Amino acid sequence: MTNVTRILGLDPGLRRTGWGVVAVAGARLAWVAHGVITPPTTAPFAERLRVLFEGLEAVIAEHRPHEAAVEETFVNSNALSALKLGHARAAALIAPARAGLAVAEYAPTVVKKALVGAGGADKTQVAFMVRRLLPACGEASADCADALAVAITHANTRRVSARVGARA
Amino acid sequence: MTNVTRILGLDPGLRRTGWGVVAVAGARLAWVAHGVITPPTTAPFAERLRVLFEGLEAVIAEHRPHEAAVEETFVNSNALSALKLGHARAAALIAPARAGLAVAEYAPTVVKKALVGAGGADKTQVAFMVRRLLPACGEASADCADALAVAITHANTRRVSARVGARA
Repeated sequence: MTNVTRILGLDPGLRRTGWGVVAVAGARLAWVAHGVITPPTTAPFAERLRVLFEGLEAVIAEHRPHEAAVEETFVNSNALSALKLGHARAAALIAPARAGLAVAEYAPTVVKKALVGAGGADKTQVAFMVRRLLPACGEASADCADALAVAITHANTRRVSARVGARA
Repeated sequence: MTNVTRILGLDPGLRRTGWGVVAVAGARLAWVAHGVITPPTTAPFAERLRVLFEGLEAVIAEHRPHEAAVEETFVNSNALSALKLGHARAAALIAPARAGLAVAEYAPTVVKKALVGAGGADKTQVAFMVRRLLPACGEASADCADALAVAITHANTRRVSARVGARA
């Protein structure tokens, strides 16, 4: 009996949105794929968002994940950068929701704690643990490591905070 | 010769997104339709965004606008509300961009100046002018009046700041 669930992890950003897919079967975890979507920085704003959105749709179409997990945003005091990040996060939430995936959100401290055991761990430690847990992923970039980390967090906890539509 | 351009104006918000469609032929302007999309406030965040996005897609499918105009956001000092508004605005930018519409953005002061002649005009004055210019619109709600106002602004200026794809 093979009951494999594929999970799409996303680390959204307007310049770079990292994505990673892992497969989980019981307690076993395996790397499937990862990558980065980089919309053209010189394009008009709506066009950059469209490229990001359609890039995510293409990832979902190719790897057919069953569930999605997105990193929650640390909101700093700069309202303008929060507004821009909000636009990118929306693309990362709408694309899987439209595809009928459950979309869970995890705070950065929860991801760090799930991977390293400490909410205050730095990015290097998280990337190190991602490579330990998913040796097949190779030298994933920082964005991809973060995306894979949130997918692993979801795989471990599977407390899906937002179930949208039925599994495909 | 009838060379009519339909313009979709949007006033995005997570709780209420106003929309309005106007038709412009040379210097003539006519009301086509307006409405409000109100995603369920109790639903998970990704689901609210999905409802908003698909509501906009339905409006575009029904009224087949050629161009879209979205009000730019006044970013206040609250980063968290800026982040939320960013999510809603993204839906309002991605939906028309994906449909191949040019998406223009206008600052609130530009909209007020275009309608009332003064960048500091209040909402009542804007709504009054919307009804004067589009008598067929009746008693549009505040969200709809704002959406129609940005559509009128675009009709008058037609300086499309962001052309995405070709006209359908």
